[in-house]
Amino acid sequence: MLPSARAASDAPLTVPPWTREPGEPVLWRAYGQPDRHESGVVRTSRGTAVLPGASSSLTPLQSLYGIITPTGLVFERHHAGIPQIDPDQHRLVVHGLVKRPLVLTMDDLVRFPSVSRIHFLECSGNTGTEWRGPATKTLQQSHGLLSCCEWTGVRLSTILEEVGVDPQAAWVLAEGADSAAMSRSIPLAKAWDDALLVYAQNGERLRPEHGYPLRLFLPGWEGNASIKWLRRLKLGAAPFMTREETSKYTDSLPDGTARQFTFAMDAKSVITYPAVDHKLRDKGYYEISGLAWTGQGRIKRVDVSTDGGATWREAQLQGPVLDRALTRFKADWRWDGGPAVLQSRAIDESGYVQPTAKQLVAQRGFNSTYHYNAIHSWKVATDGSISNAT
Amino acid sequence: MLPSARAASDAPLTVPPWTREPGEPVLWRAYGQPDRHESGVVRTSRGTAVLPGASSSLTPLQSLYGIITPTGLVFERHHAGIPQIDPDQHRLVVHGLVKRPLVLTMDDLVRFPSVSRIHFLECSGNTGTEWRGPATKTLQQSHGLLSCCEWTGVRLSTILEEVGVDPQAAWVLAEGADSAAMSRSIPLAKAWDDALLVYAQNGERLRPEHGYPLRLFLPGWEGNASIKWLRRLKLGAAPFMTREETSKYTDSLPDGTARQFTFAMDAKSVITYPAVDHKLRDKGYYEISGLAWTGQGRIKRVDVSTDGGATWREAQLQGPVLDRALTRFKADWRWDGGPAVLQSRAIDESGYVQPTAKQLVAQRGFNSTYHYNAIHSWKVATDGSISNAT
Repeated sequence: MLPSARAASDAPLTVPPWTREPGEPVLWRAYGQPDRHESGVVRTSRGTAVLPGASSSLTPLQSLYGIITPTGLVFERHHAGIPQIDPDQHRLVVHGLVKRPLVLTMDDLVRFPSVSRIHFLECSGNTGTEWRGPATKTLQQSHGLLSCCEWTGVRLSTILEEVGVDPQAAWVLAEGADSAAMSRSIPLAKAWDDALLVYAQNGERLRPEHGYPLRLFLPGWEGNASIKWLRRLKLGAAPFMTREETSKYTDSLPDGTARQFTFAMDAKSVITYPAVDHKLRDKGYYEISGLAWTGQGRIKRVDVSTDGGATWREAQLQGPVLDRALTRFKADWRWDGGPAVLQSRAIDESGYVQPTAKQLVAQRGFNSTYHYNAIHSWKVATDGSISNAT
Repeated sequence: MLPSARAASDAPLTVPPWTREPGEPVLWRAYGQPDRHESGVVRTSRGTAVLPGASSSLTPLQSLYGIITPTGLVFERHHAGIPQIDPDQHRLVVHGLVKRPLVLTMDDLVRFPSVSRIHFLECSGNTGTEWRGPATKTLQQSHGLLSCCEWTGVRLSTILEEVGVDPQAAWVLAEGADSAAMSRSIPLAKAWDDALLVYAQNGERLRPEHGYPLRLFLPGWEGNASIKWLRRLKLGAAPFMTREETSKYTDSLPDGTARQFTFAMDAKSVITYPAVDHKLRDKGYYEISGLAWTGQGRIKRVDVSTDGGATWREAQLQGPVLDRALTRFKADWRWDGGPAVLQSRAIDESGYVQPTAKQLVAQRGFNSTYHYNAIHSWKVATDGSISNAT
């Protein structure tokens, strides 16, 4: 299959230097770290931030495998930096249109029944750079506001039962303890349905940049609404119209109006290998690999094209295919050495088909920042180099 | 539900100091780390090692959630320390009873079709401390040679097809590049069935202590056979009888004979909360939570007892229940303040039932070190403290 693999000889195997001497001791590191040769696999930012606490960092999807994002590489988006919270002093207040307003400590919260769920988290600004054509040079820059983890916490519905919801309540204000006091209004139906009060991520307690010690998590919804460092839930009869749902996190349409409360993320996919960060060594076999996801349930099918969308074939989905989780897809490809354009197209169980950029712009115009989910194109040149051709 | 949660007042919320000032910048750490308040959640060893490279470190199961073990906390067992390997210089040689012996680089290996699978990894020595009664003081000490990750690599069957297997071949010698040259004989049927050549773990390349840049992974089998730092696969007609399958990793039976090549891990479970490391605050509701696993497929059912096995009830299994992965189980419990003995019992899809210690010893005697999988008991005292009562 591989032209480059060499035949082994009958000679004894070479013994490399690291086999000749004992290695580093057990518990060299009580908490493990990546190998020094992988030091380039880190989060990066898109550019220099004017306010270093109000920016984002991006997940290196081009270097990752499977569906779980290691927590140290989960993307960040903060509006006033990362607060350093003492978990013993942290409180969650639940009040407003409830019968028994409560103040909960972390000890209180972890004592409630908990659930663990594998879900993606995507910033609604992910790929927003591409609204007016290919604006970014790497996969990390275009799609890196995307991660997938196992989240553990208490169902928000459990806490709603505890406080007793007033019949007039229809929305929940969620407020963070960061100095931006990041606040979003969440429909009460989502709070009852599947919202989680999360305290652990990929098995361990949240990291500071992901909301330690407590965050809201809204499966399938834009990341901004999953308020980090959660300190308050206030129930009300109407949305609270915070700045994050009026001047920001709305989608400007061609007629000058704006879509508001566009919470659910639509189906989307991207090829992560080969991508712009890689270079094809020589002609022959490659396994195309990528990620697909949808806020509307499970991924049903992913199609792959190697000729810029002229023809499509169905990719294999790597199981388990989970509800609102990243789904890894694979397709065999034999590169003939000529120019090629690689694309993927996700279809979810609601029947929604990931649009082309042309279809997306026809519907939404050019004035949006958020919720860009068009088919992405990687252009392969005859020297094996790859560029963004969206 | 909780006696300790306090009613919220109508007064304005206190604004803590970390909300008054901007926090740490985005990309405070390009590769994230746990919060400073979680510094106690680390791997530990059972005691001082005579040879620091020939020992083990243990996963803090008492502090973890869900089923994914964060890679920095995955247990270690090395026989001559952790080699520092240059991945560009590393080679895998496949030879012996094959038609086309090959030398493969890491670049060659990652070009083959790959798969990602969530599987547990358990040292066959896990819980071996308990053969003669409760010998350990913590859950980490008794059960910490256990982890669960998403593993990505090439099917060994793909490489076997590449080299062409001689019809006489029946076993594969796997050899590591550590200075112990850790070596095990693997039946060829397992190599064809589901063995993986793994280069990534929980999304990123392997860590040094887990076999960087390449390890064998044998789903459901004792960890020792999943050779780390894999440098050689040699096919032969018979097992190679290395020291790790003659003097070690065999089970001594009461009649003086020894079980050999006892690869598959039997069904097992343990309650991780509440466990010896925790203390019950007060009477009332607790969610019992634990882990179950089997090398024989999926966990079918877990039963829980709070009276030392006199009565049992079925626990809830947290989905997805995956083939040879950790499965999280949950059971509601209302503590009346009296003495209690908490136990769990796993049943797998083969119909195998996790034995009591008495049943296990009746079958296997007291001379084994490996493959202890009996029901574990946590004794709850009236002051809420918990001890190992296996």
